[in-house]
Amino acid sequence: MSRKILGIQPVREAIRARAGDISRVFIQREAGPTLEALGRHAVGQSIEVREVDRGELDRMAAGGRHQGVIAEAAELSLTKLATLEVTENTLVAALDGVMDPQNFGAVVRSSVALGATAVMWPEHSSAPLSPSAFRASAGAIEHAILCRVRGLPEAIEELTGRGVTAVALDAQGPTELSELDLVGPVAIVIGAEDKGVRKPVRRACQHTARLPMTGPIGSLNASVAGALALYEVQRQRAARRRAAES
Amino acid sequence: MSRKILGIQPVREAIRARAGDISRVFIQREAGPTLEALGRHAVGQSIEVREVDRGELDRMAAGGRHQGVIAEAAELSLTKLATLEVTENTLVAALDGVMDPQNFGAVVRSSVALGATAVMWPEHSSAPLSPSAFRASAGAIEHAILCRVRGLPEAIEELTGRGVTAVALDAQGPTELSELDLVGPVAIVIGAEDKGVRKPVRRACQHTARLPMTGPIGSLNASVAGALALYEVQRQRAARRRAAES
Repeated sequence: MSRKILGIQPVREAIRARAGDISRVFIQREAGPTLEALGRHAVGQSIEVREVDRGELDRMAAGGRHQGVIAEAAELSLTKLATLEVTENTLVAALDGVMDPQNFGAVVRSSVALGATAVMWPEHSSAPLSPSAFRASAGAIEHAILCRVRGLPEAIEELTGRGVTAVALDAQGPTELSELDLVGPVAIVIGAEDKGVRKPVRRACQHTARLPMTGPIGSLNASVAGALALYEVQRQRAARRRAAES
Repeated sequence: MSRKILGIQPVREAIRARAGDISRVFIQREAGPTLEALGRHAVGQSIEVREVDRGELDRMAAGGRHQGVIAEAAELSLTKLATLEVTENTLVAALDGVMDPQNFGAVVRSSVALGATAVMWPEHSSAPLSPSAFRASAGAIEHAILCRVRGLPEAIEELTGRGVTAVALDAQGPTELSELDLVGPVAIVIGAEDKGVRKPVRRACQHTARLPMTGPIGSLNASVAGALALYEVQRQRAARRRAAES
């Protein structure tokens, strides 16, 4: 099985992160310097590059936005939760019920940028790993350790059993996130914007915490909420390191 | 002049924030309980509600996504920078070169949710205040104090002259944002994802600061970067208040 990666940044990140997984890159003929540079970059990584007409890319993209480039790559490899190493730096972003591929990709992008060590989601209530999700992640998904699990409550319990502190984000949570000690291994559970983190998932977490929202609008976009939580974890860890050094 | 507001959440927030500015709400006939409740809410605020066919809404929306409801409202009122009050709690989100209405709306949404007291942008290098921007803000734009200025460098200088600390976000900034004292009046300048904050704008700011990004992907989405910066400001302020109380 192979997958298609559409668009300049997603293809660029895929070449950077896993050139060996890419079988072919299709680039639009005479499409300007950015795409030509991308083509040379692929060739430099021993990837076969084919120049094709725009019409052929349109056909391959089947309605997706390709910006003149499509890569054919092996399926993303998934990591089994049981083999996921838990260390002091573990920071899992768990996605509960994020069904929209755009949102899913955006959450993955924020998570990877903020240093999540793995992204976890349940195989049923989640967007599929589609070209739109790859695209919305701006290529970040290529760099992530991905754990697709059967059920999120059981997966969270497995992690907490191995010493991970699991925190569900919820606008009505009883604790403010910054009041929790997030320095050790942590999993942050991010729900969909409309429904939030579901009850059985919340129950599997040690904490349900809210983000400080001082404005009149209650609900942040899921990728923003996730990013704020991961930022808070990284901030606490950096402060602890600085304190240990001085 | 009037404007159109499309979609359930944007119309709901507009009714909540400025019912007096709305002349009419058009709702799709027999469209289910959510829209009916929205209609009753409008009537309760003495707004005229008209039931129309889906085709008429499609025509009014001219390609926009209306979800069965469109409101007709007075243009958003803009605040002149000279009349903007500067207090200890001032937190201005300034947008530099955010040309895409989706991004513009998303940044406004994050800014309002994280307690920005005003949103400022230059009249030229910016997305227009369009229905897509209103929609992408999920209605948050209705709650914001909006300052459209002629040039951002001059506007920032005016603010710093009045005691505001201006900080430009830049992935290559020399200082980490959390190292700055952000407790007094602050303006956070957020650039577009591709170009960042432009040089003349950066020069008008006292600081150019980066966010901590520990992952392999360098560039965060503009609305996420803005949200992280505003979170950091609010976090420092809350910590200072707690310290003062104890």
